Amino acid sequence: MASKLSSKLFAVVAGAGPGTGRACAIRFSKAYPVVLLTRTAESYKDTVAEINNAGGKAIGISADTSDVKSLDSAFETIAKELPGLKLAAAIYNVGAGFQRKPFLELSVEDFDVAVGGNARGLFNFAQKTLPLLLEAVPESEHPPSLIITGATASIRGSYLFSTMAASMFARRALGQSLAREFGPKGVHVAHAIVDGVIDIPRTSHYNVNNGAEDGKIRADAIAESYWNLHTQHRSAFTQEIDIRPYVEKF
Amino acid sequence: MASKLSSKLFAVVAGAGPGTGRACAIRFSKAYPVVLLTRTAESYKDTVAEINNAGGKAIGISADTSDVKSLDSAFETIAKELPGLKLAAAIYNVGAGFQRKPFLELSVEDFDVAVGGNARGLFNFAQKTLPLLLEAVPESEHPPSLIITGATASIRGSYLFSTMAASMFARRALGQSLAREFGPKGVHVAHAIVDGVIDIPRTSHYNVNNGAEDGKIRADAIAESYWNLHTQHRSAFTQEIDIRPYVEKF
Amino acid sequence: MASKLSSKLFAVVAGAGPGTGRACAIRFSKAYPVVLLTRTAESYKDTVAEINNAGGKAIGISADTSDVKSLDSAFETIAKELPGLKLAAAIYNVGAGFQRKPFLELSVEDFDVAVGGNARGLFNFAQKTLPLLLEAVPESEHPPSLIITGATASIRGSYLFSTMAASMFARRALGQSLAREFGPKGVHVAHAIVDGVIDIPRTSHYNVNNGAEDGKIRADAIAESYWNLHTQHRSAFTQEIDIRPYVEKF
Amino acid sequence: MASKLSSKLFAVVAGAGPGTGRACAIRFSKAYPVVLLTRTAESYKDTVAEINNAGGKAIGISADTSDVKSLDSAFETIAKELPGLKLAAAIYNVGAGFQRKPFLELSVEDFDVAVGGNARGLFNFAQKTLPLLLEAVPESEHPPSLIITGATASIRGSYLFSTMAASMFARRALGQSLAREFGPKGVHVAHAIVDGVIDIPRTSHYNVNNGAEDGKIRADAIAESYWNLHTQHRSAFTQEIDIRPYVEKF
Repeated sequence: MASKLSSKLFAVVAGAGPGTGRACAIRFSKAYPVVLLTRTAESYKDTVAEINNAGGKAIGISADTSDVKSLDSAFETIAKELPGLKLAAAIYNVGAGFQRKPFLELSVEDFDVAVGGNARGLFNFAQKTLPLLLEAVPESEHPPSLIITGATASIRGSYLFSTMAASMFARRALGQSLAREFGPKGVHVAHAIVDGVIDIPRTSHYNVNNGAEDGKIRADAIAESYWNLHTQHRSAFTQEIDIRPYVEKF
Repeated sequence: MASKLSSKLFAVVAGAGPGTGRACAIRFSKAYPVVLLTRTAESYKDTVAEINNAGGKAIGISADTSDVKSLDSAFETIAKELPGLKLAAAIYNVGAGFQRKPFLELSVEDFDVAVGGNARGLFNFAQKTLPLLLEAVPESEHPPSLIITGATASIRGSYLFSTMAASMFARRALGQSLAREFGPKGVHVAHAIVDGVIDIPRTSHYNVNNGAEDGKIRADAIAESYWNLHTQHRSAFTQEIDIRPYVEKF
Repeated sequence: MASKLSSKLFAVVAGAGPGTGRACAIRFSKAYPVVLLTRTAESYKDTVAEINNAGGKAIGISADTSDVKSLDSAFETIAKELPGLKLAAAIYNVGAGFQRKPFLELSVEDFDVAVGGNARGLFNFAQKTLPLLLEAVPESEHPPSLIITGATASIRGSYLFSTMAASMFARRALGQSLAREFGPKGVHVAHAIVDGVIDIPRTSHYNVNNGAEDGKIRADAIAESYWNLHTQHRSAFTQEIDIRPYVEKF
Repeated sequence: MASKLSSKLFAVVAGAGPGTGRACAIRFSKAYPVVLLTRTAESYKDTVAEINNAGGKAIGISADTSDVKSLDSAFETIAKELPGLKLAAAIYNVGAGFQRKPFLELSVEDFDVAVGGNARGLFNFAQKTLPLLLEAVPESEHPPSLIITGATASIRGSYLFSTMAASMFARRALGQSLAREFGPKGVHVAHAIVDGVIDIPRTSHYNVNNGAEDGKIRADAIAESYWNLHTQHRSAFTQEIDIRPYVEKF
């Protein structure tokens, strides 16, 4: 497989724990060396090993996207580890912890935590990756892409989800703003509203959609849609898609 | 190529003139025999020949989707020409003529023409194709799909576009309703908001987006996105995408 | 009360049966003579009597807004009955009958009936009233207004509501288009998404929102919001509002 | 005028500088004693004097809504100054400063400032006011209301407005979440998308909408719409309105 890998381009996935992030790392590793950023090494190490064992190339770096210095340091490491490579794709998939609580039981710290990972982290990640994506425009076969994972709460504020919605609406707003600013420069910024439960070990006991077969979203199916976004021709960019199981109520 | 063609499944494209319809017919012909429905034979004959010459299989039928009888007759022809084949994909790409006029210069006939082709035609087409798509659920590798072409006017009513918007909003509403009704039965109903000028002979002299390279949408890029919708896993259906050139203001 | 009535202006309410239409007629009759248009005299006669008995002025006319000739005739009658009066407010509240059925049990006639009353009727009504509203711009204290009643189905397509949604999306599209075209000419076009069950005799036995007090929408409260739209200053027009009971899930 | 003032209820306006905040304070002072919260006394003092001179009752308090302690202190002062009064209406109109800059010229501090005032400030303000609004439910003639000022950037992310949009999307999300949580408890939470330039001294030299008369939004017209939201019957709450000049492109 290694021989098919681009020798000039790479991809980076922030929030590469089990589920979408891991699946994106694996999918994009078929074409590019991949960097996985997660808060702890624990979250990336199995996926990094799996990709490297399969003949791809993966690097894991611990970083907190909500912290500028931590992210600066991560990108310094990337520059050293992958010298001269340009950035073809950046995926922001970080999920901030959030408190699922009635509004009056929340504290402003809960608000800060949600906004920190879900929106401020994307702000920081975009600040680091967009200059690199712009540099890759002339060389990348596919338009360099910043792909952002959203959720139901990105378009709907609701009971128990006030801080989640605030931070995910903000995330979507950043994506939209960046699409309008960087699209004309050749960078594809896309946002995916993932509306449903993802099928990962942690959700294996969840009973969703009455236990229907394929009632939870397969992470590799999300990753395939992200790859399809990345490979769109620049005359036909998609800014936003929704993704949900066939049986999901919406 | 013929050997790769499904021998059990076919696709149908309504509104298969130059642009999106033609490109979809060609793209889907790589996997399925394809039926092209257009109002006049003039509109389909070159594409049909091109596909057949390339080793695919294509059939053209003249039909007016806004007219139930015309469509009934077309599907009787299909049943004869492709006996026993199940329907894997149906694409509705019909563009009704519409009057680009100030509201008070329009007549109710203008309203009827726009609604006829843009919404009533989809109603009829969905009535004919959904039973066939449902039948194909157990056999189709990819979830049988009804894919609907929309436009900017599908989500925005504006000056000079009142009848266009009325009919395209209606079309989108049908798509959404059908997605919620038929998704749980395994049929993928998706709607694409095509926001920009498509690069076809008729628009070759249009100066859009300041004449930027790739400032018009390549029809084959739309078709590729439709194919990607068709091949999504049922745990991860997209109901709506937007498609526009990287330089388009939106 | 008659003395407070405008002697130069009038209002017209299409779809003035029990509920929103009746309540609007009563509310606007406090300021203007009011014309009630309904398909049958049965639907307007009580409200007309009530307004006239209360010292207001009301006229009832039988008309089918989906039929151009019927509407032409109605406006000829209006011109005779209210000579020289200008139109300050036009309210479109017609509810087409629609079949609440699975999609494959519908016929294209069901589609036509829904579109006829819900969208084509507004097209016709707007064609008749906009010229009159434009004429009133210099004389009306409040910006002449075309106010359109929408519903949940105006923004959401769903199972059993495919034709309802198609026609109500179309209605909303017309409203938006007309707002953008006629707003700059001084006519206020507004659309109200009424999301809930209205409290009328026909719905008295409905158990909605767990039977909560005020769990159904009071028609006079809708009418008050329409009046507030009508009296907005032209520097601060609202194009769309939603209206729902405090206990409604949305 | 004082005699008409409620002796049991009061209103609070956060962000009561010139424009919408000032106009709301004046409008609501016709019915309630009003508290004006602004970052500096300079911003509230003229309006407070104007209301008191006109026979109303107004109190100004300096507070920074993005700072929990500052807001705690302000509400302690309110409890002392207006002992026993319940809160009928709370208006959040704070406008955070924001940097109108290309994305790559922004720093994360710019993000924090925008989110601080536009979203975190509302979070804090809602935490303080919702318990008071809930207490007033049984006594207030009109449903106690939390009304939030939004902007074009609340629903559209764009070039130069990335941090503004992120923070205003977040604000809207909070409003939606709170409406769904507190509506059923009798508190009316509404959000207004103010889409245009407000006519205040600072904008007097702006040439908007080609200098059309009434091409800027009159602040008192916004305040009137807020009052109309506040006085809606609980069976007919509006969650969101847009407000723009008749000549505004949208």
